[in-house]
Amino acid sequence: MARWEPGAAGRLQKAALELFATRGFEQTTATDIAESVGLTERTFFRHFSDKREVLFHGQHLLVEEFLTGVRTAPPDASPLEIVARALRSAASFFPDERRPYSRLRQSVIDQNSALQERERHKLASLATTLADALRARGVDELAATLAAESGATVFGIAFTQWIREGEDRSLADIGADVLRELVTLTTTVSRKIP
Amino acid sequence: MARWEPGAAGRLQKAALELFATRGFEQTTATDIAESVGLTERTFFRHFSDKREVLFHGQHLLVEEFLTGVRTAPPDASPLEIVARALRSAASFFPDERRPYSRLRQSVIDQNSALQERERHKLASLATTLADALRARGVDELAATLAAESGATVFGIAFTQWIREGEDRSLADIGADVLRELVTLTTTVSRKIP
Repeated sequence: MARWEPGAAGRLQKAALELFATRGFEQTTATDIAESVGLTERTFFRHFSDKREVLFHGQHLLVEEFLTGVRTAPPDASPLEIVARALRSAASFFPDERRPYSRLRQSVIDQNSALQERERHKLASLATTLADALRARGVDELAATLAAESGATVFGIAFTQWIREGEDRSLADIGADVLRELVTLTTTVSRKIP
Repeated sequence: MARWEPGAAGRLQKAALELFATRGFEQTTATDIAESVGLTERTFFRHFSDKREVLFHGQHLLVEEFLTGVRTAPPDASPLEIVARALRSAASFFPDERRPYSRLRQSVIDQNSALQERERHKLASLATTLADALRARGVDELAATLAAESGATVFGIAFTQWIREGEDRSLADIGADVLRELVTLTTTVSRKIP
């Protein structure tokens, strides 16, 4: 979910993704990536701890967008309303022109179990961070955890849909649709939990 | 979440957990585990592919309990009602006398990031399997994914609570409480998603 950055890091990311997609993740080394844009391996490792990290670089900025949404929600917002704000804020990290990059990146991740693991880990961390932010607003323990986990789930499902071929809704709109579906799902069960 | 089994596998599991807890996971080898119960390394590897797997062995039986819940839900049950059934069925895999074992197992997992990764992976697989089972019942794509992911989230939260020191409710009761909290959370947002 990395965002292009000006300078060496951005060039390395772009080159890495192209090499991963064409040659395969395993078959591409940090040196290959650096050399393809006329940089050295040393420069590569000044920006990224390993070649996996190239694909996840900048993700703290995405987490920041979620947190901005949490912080700017009205004081009387319910936990899930806060999450709805966070999702809308996070969606701004993925304007439509980013879709082809995100699609290509996901195709690389889907082909490698270590990358999938890293992605699951990042999503789990996002949920933890979101839950902390909700608790900091006074939301109680269980509600904060559930709302944060639900937010991460909705984000994951919405993102998968957003990069599907043929999809043209914005990530913000898909996220709101998925969240509404979650509300619909749960309102059909309220009187029947044994 | 492994269940004791009679015979070599069960003895190896019990011994492994004790060694992991006292000596540390990294410091315990498959040979140590086997020798501590008078078995050979070769016997160990007949039952488990690696020492991590000892802690996750038998988890397909837990998944089976979830699926039994899905299959035995009434034909007119809503997706989340089916999930409520699945959670109740899965809880039967963890009777109260299992709590000390589950607690010890979790303390081992919490100290090792590779084990945490494996656990996240297992929970993600559970969600995928649950979603497939819901789709097989005719639940549509999005509702199935959301209900299954929510079920896995509720299960994870309920399980964490169940093994907390001082907790004495059954896993089934905690699961129902957490699911009710999810319903409460979402019913406070229905009219406000932007």
